[in-house]
Amino acid sequence: MNDNFVPLSKDCLTDMKSVQDTLYVLGGKWKMLIILSLRNGNRRYREIARSIPGISLRMLSKELKEMELNKLVVRTVYTDPVVLVEYTLTEYSETLWPIVGAMIHWAKNHKQVIR
Amino acid sequence: MNDNFVPLSKDCLTDMKSVQDTLYVLGGKWKMLIILSLRNGNRRYREIARSIPGISLRMLSKELKEMELNKLVVRTVYTDPVVLVEYTLTEYSETLWPIVGAMIHWAKNHKQVIR
Repeated sequence: MNDNFVPLSKDCLTDMKSVQDTLYVLGGKWKMLIILSLRNGNRRYREIARSIPGISLRMLSKELKEMELNKLVVRTVYTDPVVLVEYTLTEYSETLWPIVGAMIHWAKNHKQVIR
Repeated sequence: MNDNFVPLSKDCLTDMKSVQDTLYVLGGKWKMLIILSLRNGNRRYREIARSIPGISLRMLSKELKEMELNKLVVRTVYTDPVVLVEYTLTEYSETLWPIVGAMIHWAKNHKQVIR
């Protein structure tokens, strides 16, 4: 055992677990972009898909289902006059804005730093 | 063209790009955990590896190199009395705390919401 080894405090491991949990719910390439698209007013499946460069319909479907399970998105089916499916952000999804906002801010600053 | 289609504003596309940039620099399973480990005082390669459950030495090495390029981490080599390599967070890495802090906070709240 190395004398210089500093074990993580219980809290740090808890923090790691929390970051992992958040990455599990929000991670990957697409979920935050879907949230931005919905926030910008897109509601229908193909509208959302068209607004996100590079996403496949299959991936969008998978991501929306996971986001629904996590109460970030609501899927509403209208049947009159025709069947219409819409996705909207939940009020709860607003708890994500500190994360999304911080990421947007950070990227802009980082560009200046590494250029 | 669907009449209901709401095109993204230029700003929303810019925001998507920013989120993508941040995910590119910080994304994946490990980088934020490495930051938490370093912040908790771990400096040497094997200490860092031991503090993060499941990371391989090869992955840690790859991630640390990328983080060095992004000025988040500094690698210092001491040669006296023996060769010793240490990693520390840069002052600049502190700009990440709003993101990491928001993620830690969000996970704790989310657990209550979905249980």
